[in-house]
Amino acid sequence: MAEKKLILVCNDDGITAPGIRNLIDVAREFGDVVVVAPDKPQSAMGHAITINATIRVNQLNSTDILEYACSGTPVDCIKLAVNKILKRKPDLLISGINHGSNASINVIYSGTMSAAMEGAMEGIPSIGFSLLDHSIDADFSASQHFARIIIRQALADKMPNGVCLNVNIPNTNKDLIKGIKVCRQARANWEEEFDERIDPNGKPYYWLTGVFRNFDDGLDTDIWALENNYVSIVPCQYDITAHSSLQHFKNWEQNV
Amino acid sequence: MAEKKLILVCNDDGITAPGIRNLIDVAREFGDVVVVAPDKPQSAMGHAITINATIRVNQLNSTDILEYACSGTPVDCIKLAVNKILKRKPDLLISGINHGSNASINVIYSGTMSAAMEGAMEGIPSIGFSLLDHSIDADFSASQHFARIIIRQALADKMPNGVCLNVNIPNTNKDLIKGIKVCRQARANWEEEFDERIDPNGKPYYWLTGVFRNFDDGLDTDIWALENNYVSIVPCQYDITAHSSLQHFKNWEQNV
Repeated sequence: MAEKKLILVCNDDGITAPGIRNLIDVAREFGDVVVVAPDKPQSAMGHAITINATIRVNQLNSTDILEYACSGTPVDCIKLAVNKILKRKPDLLISGINHGSNASINVIYSGTMSAAMEGAMEGIPSIGFSLLDHSIDADFSASQHFARIIIRQALADKMPNGVCLNVNIPNTNKDLIKGIKVCRQARANWEEEFDERIDPNGKPYYWLTGVFRNFDDGLDTDIWALENNYVSIVPCQYDITAHSSLQHFKNWEQNV
Repeated sequence: MAEKKLILVCNDDGITAPGIRNLIDVAREFGDVVVVAPDKPQSAMGHAITINATIRVNQLNSTDILEYACSGTPVDCIKLAVNKILKRKPDLLISGINHGSNASINVIYSGTMSAAMEGAMEGIPSIGFSLLDHSIDADFSASQHFARIIIRQALADKMPNGVCLNVNIPNTNKDLIKGIKVCRQARANWEEEFDERIDPNGKPYYWLTGVFRNFDDGLDTDIWALENNYVSIVPCQYDITAHSSLQHFKNWEQNV
């Protein structure tokens, strides 16, 4: 009989977030699950790792599967899981379900997606899931349904080397979602506004706020898919070389 | 007469690091310089931003140019500079000179390079510089020489949209450096080892350590260039879509 699948679960909202609890429920249908996730919210931590401070790991006693709360970033969690906690390389890494969109440029800032990216760097098939709803009491039933479909496919198929998946789910009823679209990352950015306030000592401090601006009217983008009630899948790579620009810079080369 | 060039300088080692002081010296030869950099070391912060905490900014009085120390990450620094501090969009953003390599996969973890990437996302020509020497008393004279050549080229040329440059400089005498090579990011990773220690209360904690492993024997990589005493330039993009894998995943699409 084939060995049971080993599935590593992480996120960036923290190990107690409803999103990861919902993802764990789905993961258990497919094999043995080990959770290594941050012990507190680590949203927007990107690919940060902890190199100038210590890391703590505590095994939780509250559940019947192996769960570890880690003091570090989402990427720290993956490194710890792969190098210290797991006995063998997992068959799949899933991260999320994130509370809020990681579509388009958000992928760059996302701890959830950086965990998936780190998995890909370790040669593990890796997927990040995100629901377009920030609220703590978001309804994850549609997300669970599509996570189940995509996890089944990922375990059956072979993922290309160096690639992980960025899956985003529209914030709507499952019956209104039209299907799954494979997309490219939309060209967009954040227009920041820094909310300036004055502390009790008369000194200024800032809160980062911003508005998302999509500049991309392509019909093949994740933003288009989500606005049209499709689940979006963007394959992402950690080779960030702008291969198409190599020629442009060739005349910058010099021999001295 | 043409307006003077405006150059924004950042790093991840902190505003007092020798690397950024050396880069500021070079930048001043080309125009007006504004420095917005972290008030403490922020190495390996990747593309992290500060969304659940406040940000402080303090203008330094110690120098004759505008310098701001920011409590946030390197990417926070760029967002603050562009949206709050600078009166107009800079002509160039330079980040570094980093104490240590950002070649190959290090680019993903690097706060120095994430600052440059954020610049590209804001439509600013952006370059990160790194010297392959971690030490606080590294010799930046070769780095200054090549930064000068590359900054001059960047101000004269037009950078492609959505692309920034990852420049790494070998740790050797300027006279031994053979020139500049435009490269792709080498395939490599870090093999982590977690150094486990016991605290005075008998509980374990960890330090992240690791060994860099290059798996790429291509002659067109940044690692090859650096090992052969060339300065490496890798054009990097923030569209991380694995375009060549879109077709692979097409059969994952479903309409429901």
